[in-house]
Amino acid sequence: MSGKIICFGELLLRLGAPGQQLLLQTPTLDVHVGGAEANVAVSMARFGHAARMVGAVADNALGHAALGELRRHGVDVSDVQSVPGRMGLYFLTTGALHRPSEVLYDRADSAFVRAGGGRHDWPALCAGSDWLHVSGITPALGEVSANAVLEAMRAARQAGCKVSFDGNYRPSLWQSWAGDAPRLLRAIMAEADLLFASHRDMQVVLGHEVREDTAEQRFAAGARAAFEAFPHLSQMTATIRDSDSVQQQSLAGITALRDGRLLQTRRYTLAGVIDRIGTGDAFAAGVLHGAIEGMPVEQALQFGVAAGCLKHSVPGDFNWMGMADVDAFLADGGVDVKR
Amino acid sequence: MSGKIICFGELLLRLGAPGQQLLLQTPTLDVHVGGAEANVAVSMARFGHAARMVGAVADNALGHAALGELRRHGVDVSDVQSVPGRMGLYFLTTGALHRPSEVLYDRADSAFVRAGGGRHDWPALCAGSDWLHVSGITPALGEVSANAVLEAMRAARQAGCKVSFDGNYRPSLWQSWAGDAPRLLRAIMAEADLLFASHRDMQVVLGHEVREDTAEQRFAAGARAAFEAFPHLSQMTATIRDSDSVQQQSLAGITALRDGRLLQTRRYTLAGVIDRIGTGDAFAAGVLHGAIEGMPVEQALQFGVAAGCLKHSVPGDFNWMGMADVDAFLADGGVDVKR
Amino acid sequence: MSGKIICFGELLLRLGAPGQQLLLQTPTLDVHVGGAEANVAVSMARFGHAARMVGAVADNALGHAALGELRRHGVDVSDVQSVPGRMGLYFLTTGALHRPSEVLYDRADSAFVRAGGGRHDWPALCAGSDWLHVSGITPALGEVSANAVLEAMRAARQAGCKVSFDGNYRPSLWQSWAGDAPRLLRAIMAEADLLFASHRDMQVVLGHEVREDTAEQRFAAGARAAFEAFPHLSQMTATIRDSDSVQQQSLAGITALRDGRLLQTRRYTLAGVIDRIGTGDAFAAGVLHGAIEGMPVEQALQFGVAAGCLKHSVPGDFNWMGMADVDAFLADGGVDVKR
Amino acid sequence: MSGKIICFGELLLRLGAPGQQLLLQTPTLDVHVGGAEANVAVSMARFGHAARMVGAVADNALGHAALGELRRHGVDVSDVQSVPGRMGLYFLTTGALHRPSEVLYDRADSAFVRAGGGRHDWPALCAGSDWLHVSGITPALGEVSANAVLEAMRAARQAGCKVSFDGNYRPSLWQSWAGDAPRLLRAIMAEADLLFASHRDMQVVLGHEVREDTAEQRFAAGARAAFEAFPHLSQMTATIRDSDSVQQQSLAGITALRDGRLLQTRRYTLAGVIDRIGTGDAFAAGVLHGAIEGMPVEQALQFGVAAGCLKHSVPGDFNWMGMADVDAFLADGGVDVKR
Amino acid sequence: MSGKIICFGELLLRLGAPGQQLLLQTPTLDVHVGGAEANVAVSMARFGHAARMVGAVADNALGHAALGELRRHGVDVSDVQSVPGRMGLYFLTTGALHRPSEVLYDRADSAFVRAGGGRHDWPALCAGSDWLHVSGITPALGEVSANAVLEAMRAARQAGCKVSFDGNYRPSLWQSWAGDAPRLLRAIMAEADLLFASHRDMQVVLGHEVREDTAEQRFAAGARAAFEAFPHLSQMTATIRDSDSVQQQSLAGITALRDGRLLQTRRYTLAGVIDRIGTGDAFAAGVLHGAIEGMPVEQALQFGVAAGCLKHSVPGDFNWMGMADVDAFLADGGVDVKR
Amino acid sequence: MSGKIICFGELLLRLGAPGQQLLLQTPTLDVHVGGAEANVAVSMARFGHAARMVGAVADNALGHAALGELRRHGVDVSDVQSVPGRMGLYFLTTGALHRPSEVLYDRADSAFVRAGGGRHDWPALCAGSDWLHVSGITPALGEVSANAVLEAMRAARQAGCKVSFDGNYRPSLWQSWAGDAPRLLRAIMAEADLLFASHRDMQVVLGHEVREDTAEQRFAAGARAAFEAFPHLSQMTATIRDSDSVQQQSLAGITALRDGRLLQTRRYTLAGVIDRIGTGDAFAAGVLHGAIEGMPVEQALQFGVAAGCLKHSVPGDFNWMGMADVDAFLADGGVDVKR
Repeated sequence: MSGKIICFGELLLRLGAPGQQLLLQTPTLDVHVGGAEANVAVSMARFGHAARMVGAVADNALGHAALGELRRHGVDVSDVQSVPGRMGLYFLTTGALHRPSEVLYDRADSAFVRAGGGRHDWPALCAGSDWLHVSGITPALGEVSANAVLEAMRAARQAGCKVSFDGNYRPSLWQSWAGDAPRLLRAIMAEADLLFASHRDMQVVLGHEVREDTAEQRFAAGARAAFEAFPHLSQMTATIRDSDSVQQQSLAGITALRDGRLLQTRRYTLAGVIDRIGTGDAFAAGVLHGAIEGMPVEQALQFGVAAGCLKHSVPGDFNWMGMADVDAFLADGGVDVKR
Repeated sequence: MSGKIICFGELLLRLGAPGQQLLLQTPTLDVHVGGAEANVAVSMARFGHAARMVGAVADNALGHAALGELRRHGVDVSDVQSVPGRMGLYFLTTGALHRPSEVLYDRADSAFVRAGGGRHDWPALCAGSDWLHVSGITPALGEVSANAVLEAMRAARQAGCKVSFDGNYRPSLWQSWAGDAPRLLRAIMAEADLLFASHRDMQVVLGHEVREDTAEQRFAAGARAAFEAFPHLSQMTATIRDSDSVQQQSLAGITALRDGRLLQTRRYTLAGVIDRIGTGDAFAAGVLHGAIEGMPVEQALQFGVAAGCLKHSVPGDFNWMGMADVDAFLADGGVDVKR
Repeated sequence: MSGKIICFGELLLRLGAPGQQLLLQTPTLDVHVGGAEANVAVSMARFGHAARMVGAVADNALGHAALGELRRHGVDVSDVQSVPGRMGLYFLTTGALHRPSEVLYDRADSAFVRAGGGRHDWPALCAGSDWLHVSGITPALGEVSANAVLEAMRAARQAGCKVSFDGNYRPSLWQSWAGDAPRLLRAIMAEADLLFASHRDMQVVLGHEVREDTAEQRFAAGARAAFEAFPHLSQMTATIRDSDSVQQQSLAGITALRDGRLLQTRRYTLAGVIDRIGTGDAFAAGVLHGAIEGMPVEQALQFGVAAGCLKHSVPGDFNWMGMADVDAFLADGGVDVKR
Repeated sequence: MSGKIICFGELLLRLGAPGQQLLLQTPTLDVHVGGAEANVAVSMARFGHAARMVGAVADNALGHAALGELRRHGVDVSDVQSVPGRMGLYFLTTGALHRPSEVLYDRADSAFVRAGGGRHDWPALCAGSDWLHVSGITPALGEVSANAVLEAMRAARQAGCKVSFDGNYRPSLWQSWAGDAPRLLRAIMAEADLLFASHRDMQVVLGHEVREDTAEQRFAAGARAAFEAFPHLSQMTATIRDSDSVQQQSLAGITALRDGRLLQTRRYTLAGVIDRIGTGDAFAAGVLHGAIEGMPVEQALQFGVAAGCLKHSVPGDFNWMGMADVDAFLADGGVDVKR
Repeated sequence: MSGKIICFGELLLRLGAPGQQLLLQTPTLDVHVGGAEANVAVSMARFGHAARMVGAVADNALGHAALGELRRHGVDVSDVQSVPGRMGLYFLTTGALHRPSEVLYDRADSAFVRAGGGRHDWPALCAGSDWLHVSGITPALGEVSANAVLEAMRAARQAGCKVSFDGNYRPSLWQSWAGDAPRLLRAIMAEADLLFASHRDMQVVLGHEVREDTAEQRFAAGARAAFEAFPHLSQMTATIRDSDSVQQQSLAGITALRDGRLLQTRRYTLAGVIDRIGTGDAFAAGVLHGAIEGMPVEQALQFGVAAGCLKHSVPGDFNWMGMADVDAFLADGGVDVKR
Repeated sequence: MSGKIICFGELLLRLGAPGQQLLLQTPTLDVHVGGAEANVAVSMARFGHAARMVGAVADNALGHAALGELRRHGVDVSDVQSVPGRMGLYFLTTGALHRPSEVLYDRADSAFVRAGGGRHDWPALCAGSDWLHVSGITPALGEVSANAVLEAMRAARQAGCKVSFDGNYRPSLWQSWAGDAPRLLRAIMAEADLLFASHRDMQVVLGHEVREDTAEQRFAAGARAAFEAFPHLSQMTATIRDSDSVQQQSLAGITALRDGRLLQTRRYTLAGVIDRIGTGDAFAAGVLHGAIEGMPVEQALQFGVAAGCLKHSVPGDFNWMGMADVDAFLADGGVDVKR
């Protein structure tokens, strides 16, 4: 049972130093298309859903290339508008050992930001959809896109479309236009059915103190606060990550429900990480897939963590893994060569 | 004391996605030449033996390139015939973490298959040789090549040439022409002095049930069945592999002798696997080298496992490691930079 | 408080097989510029010091490229002379698992060697500097450069400039001209304030026997011998390395002082080594930075080990890491993506 | 005024040696997606039309990648079926000077051929379209696809959809299944409104003798024969190419109309050809664009030749040039850098 | 007799599609550092002069890399300030045949623009220099940098430093901030001794009508107007280019003197252009070199055209050619391999 | 009728900047194996002859790779000895337009030179061969190899083996050891049946003055002198090259016979040269092929020029073109894509 999902957000070009080189150590850059919501859209399309990207790109060769890349993965981009301006970029240096990967953003004043994400007929868009997904990056890009997020979410609720929101709090983006993050995020989260968020997101938004010892307790406390503050919220979920080195990490998933239940997956070891970017979005897409397919929450959480783990093995921002890949992971199909 | 070895089988071109990319994620493919028996031939040439490849390739630029690559490694290819048809190909996606590597075969109806491996004067070929090696892939390619394997092996026995056979059971190949694998493999194994095979191969061929608990016990049971069934067989050997992730594995070697002895090496950790393809053939070549050199069985097994472990560090299907490399491994020469 | 440091030595071009390939497995070589003293100079420039390279390169496109690379990192090369002859080269095959990396030197009869490192006005050079650094490679290149090292060091002492020497004992270089390593190195070490050296260096130079059990005890014994033999020496320091596989190692730092104190850092795990070449020089530069900045010895040792560890994540001979990177490492800034 | 066009044919993967290298001179292949009809479809999509590809691809990573590439260019692939089997391949060696480029086909027994191009509801497909385009390669692939072409064309005529056919006569394909090319092509051409064909195509199909001296006269004679034989035909068109060397060619366009008019463009010099593959398809797409837009025939011919010329500057099988590029060419916008 | 030259302008990163690919046809970009004045600075350093870049770059990894690249070529960058903001970028698609190369600027709101080119002590800078060079791009970037150009030029005149100005008129840059190009450029040109400008530049600045037939006559008329308007001007010079295709062009140089003399070089054929970007700057640097060396005007013009022609054979924005290369060109040293 | 040919000379590694880049403009080098005699050997093997390389290489990974590359092309290298020392290298910068390609030799003191080309049993080698080929580079490498050339040639004459010698005069090599080129070359040429040489070679060797106007006349005069001086000589041949630019050249062949006949081919235009290195050797191999096959001299000259022209389209030192390619060239098979 596949669904129709709308993702609203900015497309970015990632320009990365090859391998583990420093930025411009050699004069070549590898290009990927990304963006928190686009990453989710691609994953959903790969899981068999009708994924529609909504937003705006620069009306030039870079913007057109970004759209082409989404189309390649089967995402409908007819509602991404081509508008004057520049594409948002980010430069990536992939780390190793104790040297962390570094993102250098060059996304200020992008075509998306200037156009406030584009002008869209949200009621019409939501009428034909089952789900709307947005991340905290879209409202962080400016007043206009923050309001567009609210408008989109309210249209979604109106149309009986479920709403998910991924915290993705980036202080630097909010500071660049002095946006009142707590106020706007509270308004936005109040419209969400499903929240991808950590206790840190809740701290930013609700301002409560954190005194708990373990990651699980902190998450549970943040979730309790969220359920109190946001009446429509039925589920909050997150990953718990442990990083020994850039290449050696581990990942688990955790979900809190309004009835107080706290579900967790086992912790998966990630020895030999290829690309950590977009793994949170891959997790989110996995959980959304489970939700749309009507899986029990625990199973959806499992599916999300499996998708998130697999993304660590895929170069680029997008998760190329389909349902068969995730199912094989969950069935522990083994890692020897498949012939 | 080097020997003369004949390897009979198909040459394939491997077209692989670069690094850990998905297939055609970027529009480039890295090419390697491989094939179970060719891998053994190259290894044997690198260990100082006179290795002769016997078979057939497409009479076009791809076939000629494959021959050139074998010549480069010092393998005599004057008995590989250039015949009409296409080269067998396989596409490789190298995995990472929990995402297994994937082989997509495109070898159906190859020039080798059409020519049944080519027409060869087996008595003449065997007369000048010490050893004949074939893998289970050659008979799996069709009736004609299955019969050619039998003919070759019988000519070898006649000529006093030792015969080794590597199970390499691939159900999909047998199914493609509805070949009676158990019957043909039984006939073939009945000619072998040395068998590279696991208990699973024995199950396929002899149909007995497996009830043992450990890998060692299962191997021993399979070997007992093999010694009963195959009168010429003096040794059966295999690797035992453990895979935590694509990049994190371990390897040991095990050998059973007709007199009931069971020999094992210690388990070597492989942390940071570069290329797992061809490691079984590298192990086989190492064991064959030991046998031809007249090493005690245990030492030959050690040499084989060392060769197999080292192959995991070498990109491509061929094992570039020579005797000095294997000896340094066995002497634990350390892994710091050699200057 | 940044200082002025002179590094005297040869620049080399490293021609490396890409990735983990064997040398010339595919017909491409990746080029880096290196050399023990140049590596230190680049690191010092990145730490904010005025680093000056002294020496000689071939007066051709290769030599000019090497100079350009040093300039790119901010090293002053106006005292590297362009002289007739060839550039010293080395070919690198990067290992994996149990297959060690291999260096194939092609540096004999280089322009540097022929010119004895060039003709330099050492008193003038040292007058304007705080520190002189040389490694054991420079004297090993021939009588003339060995004498030049002595001349430089004595000029440095005269000018009140501190002197450090990095053992870097390479028997093959000394043998190529039958140089009397112990005698010359004793004379050289007698001028040093700070020695980067292991107990093995001390064995070569002082000839005493080693009977101690642990790496720490052997280092301490070597240091005691050094302090006895070399009156100006105030500190001897080294790394202690453990290598499970090419990609899996660990590193600690150790320092002995004239007053008998023995300082050690904790052992850092290096899981997923990118490039081991130049890590000793990165360590040395870190320790020198601490010394010039006036850090307590223990803190300087920490800084050195941190720099050395980080270098394992950087492709090439040079350590691109600056003070902010080392400080983040020491503050355990975490290894998740920095945005 | 954009239109809706259907293109029916096979998708191929081109595996090409990089630059001007010989095939497998170095072990890398550059991959492009192509196919005569797909090339037209991509061009039409770039010219702003709704282009729909109809056919079948292998249901594996290669087939999916080919579809993704068409989607990237905006071609609707929902009517390309994923069926069991292998992808058709061709290996390309790009020539230089007097050494011609070479295509090595490896397309026998492809998924498309096995599936006879797939099962399609031609009346429904044509009902919603303005134009159907097929090339002579599709019928040459086998009886089933030849019949499918006829069925498609008749459905198109029925639905009032214009029909174009591009000769593209490849003897080797017809010979591989002993197809009666003249008979089948006559039946097919009898359904065409617009024929891309040379006098050589007419010779094959109609068997008349050619006695004319110049290329123009030969084309005119072929066209006269075509108009006599094929009642629905209103236009036959072709390029006239002159090749001094692989990199130095020239191109003109020629069109014959049923009323006897013969139109020609001037001859354009092509000094520094980048990629000659797909240039005929680019020409065809340009002429089709003109026809669908309702341009006078002469202007459409101009547009076609311009598109064909520009394609020689674009790497790969597809013509990335859009209307603005062709218009700039026709307006002689100059070749200095556009800023 | 080498001199000291100051170049004031912005550094840009060029991100180019590899070979003749379309932008992002494959996901890789080749990076070069450029900028009209930087190109001149690098050329002058390669000709043996002390070249000093003055300006500002982003204080991030991209800005630091740009500085490193200038240092590599021997340009003194100690007066390029690292300031907050982004690096100016441009994306380059290299054309072929009739498809022109395309520059997509992404330089708005760069660190240089925001900082108005940085704050510099122009009297001090000019005091130690022989020459100041600026192009029309620097004033086009905004009011502040336009004023900085004027301030710099006046300080130069004051200090007895010669002043050259390269028109480089880019309407889009002026329009982006509605700058009064004619007024500001008149003020700037009034300070110049040497003008690199065409009659089109003079039209923009002086507004006179052009009625002449030939390129030479138009240049001469423009020059007459310039000498009337700008009292300090002693020489105006330009290249005359003819472009048959992107790869096939020709180049000549022309110079007008205040005394009415008009000097021209012969026209050089450029068959097989590698990189046209930066060729005007290479010409300018050649003429400046001649001027500083005290060559007769005609000889300096020759040197400039030779440098400009050679630049067409060099990938990237910078001209790597030194005096020996230009001299060999002028002496017609032949084009066969130099061994 | 194929023959057996021996080629005696040094193998070199060519390390080239990619594309038209300057040396180390980017830090990558493309590697080819070459050497005047090896180039001939590879060509002869490709033409179907039994080609045997005789000489010596460094006994390290580089030397082994060079041997592997010859084996790949089917050359017998069992008489190339692996000896201590370094491989000879050369660095290549490929030119463009007016910028000539540059070779930077780094071949001094190579393993070949040190071993004087190795110790060989020339009578035995020649006994089984039809032809011996050497170039002027081998004697220029030192007294020992010069004497080895003489010894080899005399053994060849003795054994009834034909002898060819290619002038290839490189003053810098002779100067490096102060060899008496004229004397040694006279002795060597006195043993040759077939000489590849220009009038310039004859000037060096015979010292006569050249007063002729045209290339043809100068060649004829040189040939007359040669026939007088060298009693065994029956044919002297050369190419005549014209170079407008690096990419735009032309080539013809010329041959003089002892009976005074002067034969010439037409001049072939080479527009878009890919690689000029090794084209003289390709020509020589073509002429030798004709001679061994017993072609009339004129036809052999044609074959040689055709082979030489085609080599300009092939990257690397070796000519990959086989007889079919040369025949197609001579038959003017056209340059459109071969399918």
